[in-house]
Amino acid sequence: MPSLVLSNPVFAAYVAAAALLVLKMASMSWLTAYRMMKSRSGFRSPEDANPGIFNPAPRHGQLDRDEYVDRIRRIHQNDYENIPPFLAIGLLYVLTGPDPGLAQVLLATYVISRLLHFAAYVTARSHELRATLWSTGSLVMIYMAGACLVAAVDALSR
Amino acid sequence: MPSLVLSNPVFAAYVAAAALLVLKMASMSWLTAYRMMKSRSGFRSPEDANPGIFNPAPRHGQLDRDEYVDRIRRIHQNDYENIPPFLAIGLLYVLTGPDPGLAQVLLATYVISRLLHFAAYVTARSHELRATLWSTGSLVMIYMAGACLVAAVDALSR
Amino acid sequence: MPSLVLSNPVFAAYVAAAALLVLKMASMSWLTAYRMMKSRSGFRSPEDANPGIFNPAPRHGQLDRDEYVDRIRRIHQNDYENIPPFLAIGLLYVLTGPDPGLAQVLLATYVISRLLHFAAYVTARSHELRATLWSTGSLVMIYMAGACLVAAVDALSR
Repeated sequence: MPSLVLSNPVFAAYVAAAALLVLKMASMSWLTAYRMMKSRSGFRSPEDANPGIFNPAPRHGQLDRDEYVDRIRRIHQNDYENIPPFLAIGLLYVLTGPDPGLAQVLLATYVISRLLHFAAYVTARSHELRATLWSTGSLVMIYMAGACLVAAVDALSR
Repeated sequence: MPSLVLSNPVFAAYVAAAALLVLKMASMSWLTAYRMMKSRSGFRSPEDANPGIFNPAPRHGQLDRDEYVDRIRRIHQNDYENIPPFLAIGLLYVLTGPDPGLAQVLLATYVISRLLHFAAYVTARSHELRATLWSTGSLVMIYMAGACLVAAVDALSR
Repeated sequence: MPSLVLSNPVFAAYVAAAALLVLKMASMSWLTAYRMMKSRSGFRSPEDANPGIFNPAPRHGQLDRDEYVDRIRRIHQNDYENIPPFLAIGLLYVLTGPDPGLAQVLLATYVISRLLHFAAYVTARSHELRATLWSTGSLVMIYMAGACLVAAVDALSR
């Protein structure tokens, strides 16, 4: 019976993947903050336009949408649309006792697809390339969800 | 002691519910993509307005907000505001060892409320109907969180 | 071996923290609804501008962005950017068998930082104060993710 201990190599692979994905998401927050500070643009709350350590010389338009900052916000949005459900279903997939080799390939594919998606998005590559990389991860997640659903329905109908 | 094995019918019901909810969320991403491709509208990155397979004949205004696409984005937003915390608290609720019948009713109610919320939203039914369906799911989640909090505080105060 | 039972005080502390964070997130949804209803502003779907129980006397501009409502939406966004990945990595961190005292301090720090972040944001305190409170929680999450990654890589390389 599969279990949530690190001596289970499928679970250990899941923990490594989850940690990398959480660090990736957290990096988007910090990168947004970095770009806001560097450009003093793309703020969103009225009080952020006040003078302070973060904004020593306020100027008009600092609350406007700024593409340099907004690009990271969009990448971050793509993360929070995708990564939390992946983390949830990935853990359940581990608990269905999948083939270890397949599970590790799927987990690695997901992490790599998200890192390449970031690289393609931040450098403004074509919509087609970005979509292909996103789709790869989405299909991995859909496969895991389907496997979980089949396993759960099978168990419930016994 | 409740555990995370599929022979536990509460856990199996949770896995089925989680898989359906993850598939529902993933469907919103694909439906957004479908509507963007069908209408060639509602793109969000400047590079998406360039000519390519996804955009053979660029035209002015493709980066503007488009209600046909944006409606799915709003439904998707409602999903990522609600489903990831539900998935987290639902798993913990299973681990508190709830009454199996009650747990299965709550899980089924949540999934059905989300599917009906989608149906009401995508067909632009009244705010009142949409809010009622959303509230049903939110109250299920709040109940589960309350039950988890009571069980955890009880365990910690022993 | 650490396990997901409430008699494990680290897991019980995690369940209490997770329940509070889920209730905090759900409160943002209800607070957004409350402010929308109170001001009859900040609606987002065209059908919400129709007359109904929620909108007895429609008026022009109800679909425009409204700062009173939008402030809660931004706080909610900060929640869904941060809390779901924290819930995922927090559970895995519990399973790595951390020092109980450290784990409980980290969990409490995270919850308190999020509650203070809300208090600072809703009262429009300075960007600097809000950012400091957010950073505290983010660093806790990054620490937990790093600890999980180290433990997983260590287990995989044995």
